[in-house]
Amino acid sequence: MKRLSTTEPGFEAGFTAILEDGRDTTTRVDAAVSAIIAAVREEGDAALLRYTARWDGWAPATAQDLRVTAAEVEAALASIPADLLAALDVAAARIEAFHRAQLPTDLDLNGADGVAVGMRWGPLDAVGLYVPGGKAAYPSSVLMNALPARVAGVGRIAIAVPATEGAINPLVLAAAHRAGVSEIWRVGGAQAVAALAWGTQSIAPVDRIVGPGNAYVAEAKRQVFGRVGIDSIAGPSEVVILADADNNPDHVALDLLAQAEHDEAAQSILITDSAALADAVAASVARELRTLPRAGIAGESWRDHGAVILVRDMEEAAALTNRLAPEHLQIMVADPRALFAKIRHAGAAFLGRHTPEAIGDYVAGPNHVLPTGRTSRFASGLSVFDFLKRTTWVECSEAGLAAIGPAAVALAQAEGLGAHGLSVSTRLHSNAPSIMAKT
Amino acid sequence: MKRLSTTEPGFEAGFTAILEDGRDTTTRVDAAVSAIIAAVREEGDAALLRYTARWDGWAPATAQDLRVTAAEVEAALASIPADLLAALDVAAARIEAFHRAQLPTDLDLNGADGVAVGMRWGPLDAVGLYVPGGKAAYPSSVLMNALPARVAGVGRIAIAVPATEGAINPLVLAAAHRAGVSEIWRVGGAQAVAALAWGTQSIAPVDRIVGPGNAYVAEAKRQVFGRVGIDSIAGPSEVVILADADNNPDHVALDLLAQAEHDEAAQSILITDSAALADAVAASVARELRTLPRAGIAGESWRDHGAVILVRDMEEAAALTNRLAPEHLQIMVADPRALFAKIRHAGAAFLGRHTPEAIGDYVAGPNHVLPTGRTSRFASGLSVFDFLKRTTWVECSEAGLAAIGPAAVALAQAEGLGAHGLSVSTRLHSNAPSIMAKT
Repeated sequence: MKRLSTTEPGFEAGFTAILEDGRDTTTRVDAAVSAIIAAVREEGDAALLRYTARWDGWAPATAQDLRVTAAEVEAALASIPADLLAALDVAAARIEAFHRAQLPTDLDLNGADGVAVGMRWGPLDAVGLYVPGGKAAYPSSVLMNALPARVAGVGRIAIAVPATEGAINPLVLAAAHRAGVSEIWRVGGAQAVAALAWGTQSIAPVDRIVGPGNAYVAEAKRQVFGRVGIDSIAGPSEVVILADADNNPDHVALDLLAQAEHDEAAQSILITDSAALADAVAASVARELRTLPRAGIAGESWRDHGAVILVRDMEEAAALTNRLAPEHLQIMVADPRALFAKIRHAGAAFLGRHTPEAIGDYVAGPNHVLPTGRTSRFASGLSVFDFLKRTTWVECSEAGLAAIGPAAVALAQAEGLGAHGLSVSTRLHSNAPSIMAKT
Repeated sequence: MKRLSTTEPGFEAGFTAILEDGRDTTTRVDAAVSAIIAAVREEGDAALLRYTARWDGWAPATAQDLRVTAAEVEAALASIPADLLAALDVAAARIEAFHRAQLPTDLDLNGADGVAVGMRWGPLDAVGLYVPGGKAAYPSSVLMNALPARVAGVGRIAIAVPATEGAINPLVLAAAHRAGVSEIWRVGGAQAVAALAWGTQSIAPVDRIVGPGNAYVAEAKRQVFGRVGIDSIAGPSEVVILADADNNPDHVALDLLAQAEHDEAAQSILITDSAALADAVAASVARELRTLPRAGIAGESWRDHGAVILVRDMEEAAALTNRLAPEHLQIMVADPRALFAKIRHAGAAFLGRHTPEAIGDYVAGPNHVLPTGRTSRFASGLSVFDFLKRTTWVECSEAGLAAIGPAAVALAQAEGLGAHGLSVSTRLHSNAPSIMAKT
């Protein structure tokens, strides 16, 4: 863990090191991933079967084995304690409600000048959701990925999730069921992304692929971008906590560790104007690391990427936060909304002392799939917008075209595009709309 | 030009060939582009100067020569005829008004249960707009790229445009001026994209890069994606025209040719239920190609990628259109809105007989930077949304956390994330919000 103070010399160098701490665990996988994609495009299901046998620790006999059956989903549901299913329902209902409120409205501007223009939103036909498997098989991610698609009105939602030894966490299946997923495929890695983008004999291609994954998944998404849409390439997770003196240091410590326990490459940063809080939080982190179940991961993250930054005041904290553009931001001060108003870049904000980031990971409602690695400068969390697209439209009356047509003709001629100009001018000069006989 | 009829055998094979006609002129440029990006990252301005001298036909002496001065912009404005400036103003005013109407509103849901959630939109700090140079230096593209950024509230808008022999089309400079662009750089190709993404000694980095370009520009955007945001990778342009018998075939022919004259790889498709119109349009296209200034390009596009498809009825036309997911769609029938309601995928639609696509290229208002190559299945045209991002937020009261916290704890425990669960449960069980003395 790095300790910095804005009043000390060397602060800027230390802070820049934090900004440039890519936490990039990427081994170069481009070539491996393009070979996998090429194999899936060429061989289809056969390649999926081969890769699954090689990497997932089970050998499907046929492509049909890759698909999770309705009976398996039923069995999973039956195996889950009622209180856990109830928790899943609380989460699903709140996530669904938030994303429903996010739905945009169409635009329909009927110009008095005879030129009507507008914009219409519509859902994608089919989307693929990647869900990491193994130790990171998170039912909450299934809800966060699938529900916005469903709320947007997507017709077909296909999930790909690697199944270690053929098995998938029952709660993942329950979440998929609750979210109204159409298909669940026991396929992972770059081969799953390739199958969703290009299709195989069994898996129909989708129009967009979303969801986090490892380096292979991220590189595969990058490579199929253009063929299908993708969401942002997710990197390791991060949190910045702005906290004044009036906080329980154990709360702050656990919030930092909740982020750190995700991944050794995760980053947790406390920015405070209280040296006493900084000390107490650091001590509390050390204490909690003695007992936390994932202390190994969290401890390594905190040691290598954690930071405590002492600032003169919260104004300064806001300025540093805008440079960090964090994925998650907790604002634990007396008037969190006033400080939030000074933040330009953050994926998601958690306001006040009673709003640990973990509440947003599960049940608050907003999405937990968020832009990492300073990309909240330009990117946003997953939302219904990821599953909608816009068609703009124009409708000119004869008078409308006469009003704005000459400007278009002048610009087309200036750009040397003759047919563009003629396609407008010919309509301005011919009063006979048709020379064809009615059929 | 390919002629198909849905009533003839072999239709499906022919239509599939159209769908799979990638029109992909991409020579593989990945390696060349990564070398260029690496050089710009390492050498900065020096690499820009070298590449500009090598490829743009002029040799800037220093990096300062790369920047267009205010005096140059003034001189450009003074050189342009008043009627052309007036046409630019008509276009700019309409484009600005449309994009202003597009601005979304924030979400603020004050839950009665003590859990407030919301979503806040904010502009990007800085964006780069790529504008193709040379023969394709289009002032209209400058307006279409820069005005949405400006309407969104972006603070810094930097344009990169290659200047053949150092010169830039004066109308491009005028458009940039009219659109409120902050900086104009005489730099093109992959090196421009690299400079905007990574910054050089002269050019500060931006957060997102948009705008169409050649294969090098597209590949460079793909490679810097993640470091900065990008828009969709633009391919060759296309139009689908749905027209019934009651149309002037010369209008339809010119609309097809307006698309075809962009690029040999452009694609123009007429879908009609009238064999007579199909014949008359084909004849008119042949006639117009004798006199059009860009007949060489348009003729090659029409010959290699053009198509006329005869359908039984307009219902069938809508179904084929949804498979084509065209960038531009003209609907030239008696009730264009009814037919438009059946279209799920199109970048932009032009309704009725008085709305040639070219009107949308210049002055209608909606953006002309649109998803090509069937990507309107999942992508949308450029808009204010490209220059905004969202921050979601949550604020729990103590009672709010008590209400939804237990569900979060249950899910965190099920996912094996101990610190997540503790960060919530410790707040539920401690009634003392702070053990720290007030500072």
